Amino acid sequence: MIDPTAYIRDIFTKPLGAQVTAHGWVKTRRDSKGIHFIQLNDGSTFQDLQVVIESAIIPESALSQATNGACVRVTGELIASPGSGQSVELKASELQVYGPADPATYPLQKKGHTMEFLREIAHLRVRSNTFGAVFRVRNALSFAIHKFFQDRGFLYVHTPLITASDAEGAGAMFRVTTLPPGPANPAEDFFGRNTYLAVSGQLEAEIFALAFTNVYTFGPTFRAENSNTPRHLAEFWMVEPEMAFCDLDGNRKLAEEFLKSIIGYVLDHCRPDLEFFNKRIDNTVLATLEHVAASAFEHVTYTEAVALLEKSGRAWEFPAHWGADLQSEHERYLTEEVFKKPVIVTDYPAEIKAFYMRLNDDGKTVRAMDVLAPRIGEIIGGSQREERYDVLSEKIRAKGLPEESYKWYLDLRKYGTAPHAGFGLGLERMMMYLTGMKNIRDVIPFPRTPGSAEF
Amino acid sequence: MIDPTAYIRDIFTKPLGAQVTAHGWVKTRRDSKGIHFIQLNDGSTFQDLQVVIESAIIPESALSQATNGACVRVTGELIASPGSGQSVELKASELQVYGPADPATYPLQKKGHTMEFLREIAHLRVRSNTFGAVFRVRNALSFAIHKFFQDRGFLYVHTPLITASDAEGAGAMFRVTTLPPGPANPAEDFFGRNTYLAVSGQLEAEIFALAFTNVYTFGPTFRAENSNTPRHLAEFWMVEPEMAFCDLDGNRKLAEEFLKSIIGYVLDHCRPDLEFFNKRIDNTVLATLEHVAASAFEHVTYTEAVALLEKSGRAWEFPAHWGADLQSEHERYLTEEVFKKPVIVTDYPAEIKAFYMRLNDDGKTVRAMDVLAPRIGEIIGGSQREERYDVLSEKIRAKGLPEESYKWYLDLRKYGTAPHAGFGLGLERMMMYLTGMKNIRDVIPFPRTPGSAEF
Repeated sequence: MIDPTAYIRDIFTKPLGAQVTAHGWVKTRRDSKGIHFIQLNDGSTFQDLQVVIESAIIPESALSQATNGACVRVTGELIASPGSGQSVELKASELQVYGPADPATYPLQKKGHTMEFLREIAHLRVRSNTFGAVFRVRNALSFAIHKFFQDRGFLYVHTPLITASDAEGAGAMFRVTTLPPGPANPAEDFFGRNTYLAVSGQLEAEIFALAFTNVYTFGPTFRAENSNTPRHLAEFWMVEPEMAFCDLDGNRKLAEEFLKSIIGYVLDHCRPDLEFFNKRIDNTVLATLEHVAASAFEHVTYTEAVALLEKSGRAWEFPAHWGADLQSEHERYLTEEVFKKPVIVTDYPAEIKAFYMRLNDDGKTVRAMDVLAPRIGEIIGGSQREERYDVLSEKIRAKGLPEESYKWYLDLRKYGTAPHAGFGLGLERMMMYLTGMKNIRDVIPFPRTPGSAEF
Repeated sequence: MIDPTAYIRDIFTKPLGAQVTAHGWVKTRRDSKGIHFIQLNDGSTFQDLQVVIESAIIPESALSQATNGACVRVTGELIASPGSGQSVELKASELQVYGPADPATYPLQKKGHTMEFLREIAHLRVRSNTFGAVFRVRNALSFAIHKFFQDRGFLYVHTPLITASDAEGAGAMFRVTTLPPGPANPAEDFFGRNTYLAVSGQLEAEIFALAFTNVYTFGPTFRAENSNTPRHLAEFWMVEPEMAFCDLDGNRKLAEEFLKSIIGYVLDHCRPDLEFFNKRIDNTVLATLEHVAASAFEHVTYTEAVALLEKSGRAWEFPAHWGADLQSEHERYLTEEVFKKPVIVTDYPAEIKAFYMRLNDDGKTVRAMDVLAPRIGEIIGGSQREERYDVLSEKIRAKGLPEESYKWYLDLRKYGTAPHAGFGLGLERMMMYLTGMKNIRDVIPFPRTPGSAEF
């Protein structure tokens, strides 16, 4: 079906009496006195198309195969529906079954499956209400991201995933090799040295920002942490804009505008899906999103944030004091109780942040920012970058990073450096925020986690 | 600079007399009797902004640093330019140097660098005319791809890059591991088994097509072939649409519409860049693109194509006969001499094509298609997929593929199967076609090839 007007979504917009043809998968079927009701879905919209079939009109050979999970083509007339739940239905005059689904073995029966079981049948869960909605939202979110940056003249950059450096020393990496297991000489490997899967495209994005002004990356990223939690994936997607001639204030403003814009796009384009999440998964989803889209974000420095936490009178699990990183409980307190809206915390202690963040004049804080949101905590992390050659090269030395690996990164400060800044948003964190889904494995098509790389 | 109206591209649209501020990198500078001319570029457009500076107005301390490669901010008045090559220029009243570039060591001096040398300074080559144009075209092409599919209701799917199966058995793969080099037990590895980098997202895209009707992937792909040629990369980007309820004819029509649409988008959005390629890199680029965008593609079967080659009277390097794959010389003959436009060849011998392509009734050809274009040969490969359980499972057995790995793929044929089809386009091949660039290493930001994984 490459006719873009033949989706079920579009059938709903046609006038009563129209002759239409629908393709899709039978979601449920019930039979009542010679009349058969099929809920048909083609993935184009949350709402199923109700198909009404009279036994007398459709041959039993076809009808008997049109069970839950079967793929069918139905032609007929669009009529007003007397039933509740839909305003129109399709009165079938023809039914063709492309592919039946044996009711005795089809794994995706009506209702009642756990999320764990659905993960095992990730090739079929996509046909369920929940995962249909998840992946429509993921599609809309992804395009909203591109549209936001393209509308503002940002250049989309494809940074490499195979890398010979371990970037910011940010944590466990996967090694990429063509040598068979066994004693190995890196010089004999495909790239003539050890290579890894990238944990970020930021440093390469900086190269492009210092030539094209405003750029962004959007692609897969890897982390080989042995964390089997509902919030960690070994392979996930990340968006990283990087802007020349931009300081931390500009960065902060762009992050706020970006979040509001992508939330607004998904609210506009996936309303029925979000209503489903709000009803079935988390009844705060819609209110939170609408609130965030409409709020002016708050801004406090890390030092101010710590002061608020210290005078809160709370018994924190992790004591709040200057120099310690903010924990989830602190982030939620700030966004949900103190300010009741998103909060951007800036100027963290240099000690707890990456080497490339710009040092403030106080010599102890850096121009970092975290965007915290109610219900989820940190959703964006970013900074103004250190653009001064001497300060950066001293930082690299002090952190004991291999200077030779950063030669090109330092070159950017040696030749035509400029103030610049950027941030990163994890797509799956954003997906959890949009949908209310509780496990990150359920917002990505085929999750990669310790011990699991199915499909 | 997060003000999207402050790009140099936009400055060109402002009225004479406007006070403007430009940021960018000095591309060239010349001095003549107390007047200094700077060509300034911020990556937003091919055309440099000419800045005119009078020695009397700008302090020597700033002026002396505004050399080739430096990053500057200039404020002044937009005036008519008496010089040739530009209609307006910026008469500077203020000049700030963000970052100088020592003329003695700055590697990207005026002209005359080889492509090989520029690859070694890939962090700076992006500021040159050629690579500025390359990456603006790559950005426009990438967004055109998203826009084409989103406009038609296709769902963007993120298929996994780490995979436990070797897909179609399509060739050398990179292994992904967290075990140190040395004797290794796959059961102890991160995923509890051997894993690889994906060579295609097609099989997983089929899962989504059989739930959402029309989908596409767009992301990085890997091939560990030890091919050190101007046409091979170990890491490259690929687009793979997959459509349910679509046969080979529909596939063919979509491929044609797709190519014309993305070429048209780049012609519309990157005209100055394409004119540069046409002038400096390959003077057939513009004519070829405009011709392809306007031609009705030709369609012949493989059997017809072989007959044309056999009766051509040519002395082929690779003899053309039924059963042999078409070689580059054959493809160019068909597109450049016989038809003088793009040709879609379909229905290849089953023997030379992948197991998942749908078998024709003749039992010896499959519903494959290759789109061949003048000047470059094959640019798209695709097929209608085998949707029949019995035929597919027999094919998997006959090819000696591990049946257990394909259980979920066969399940798609067992439960609600549908006719479906799709194709793949290599982004870098398309980039070479659009730009005329001769080496694939020069159309991707940081090329990965045997022995090389720089930056």
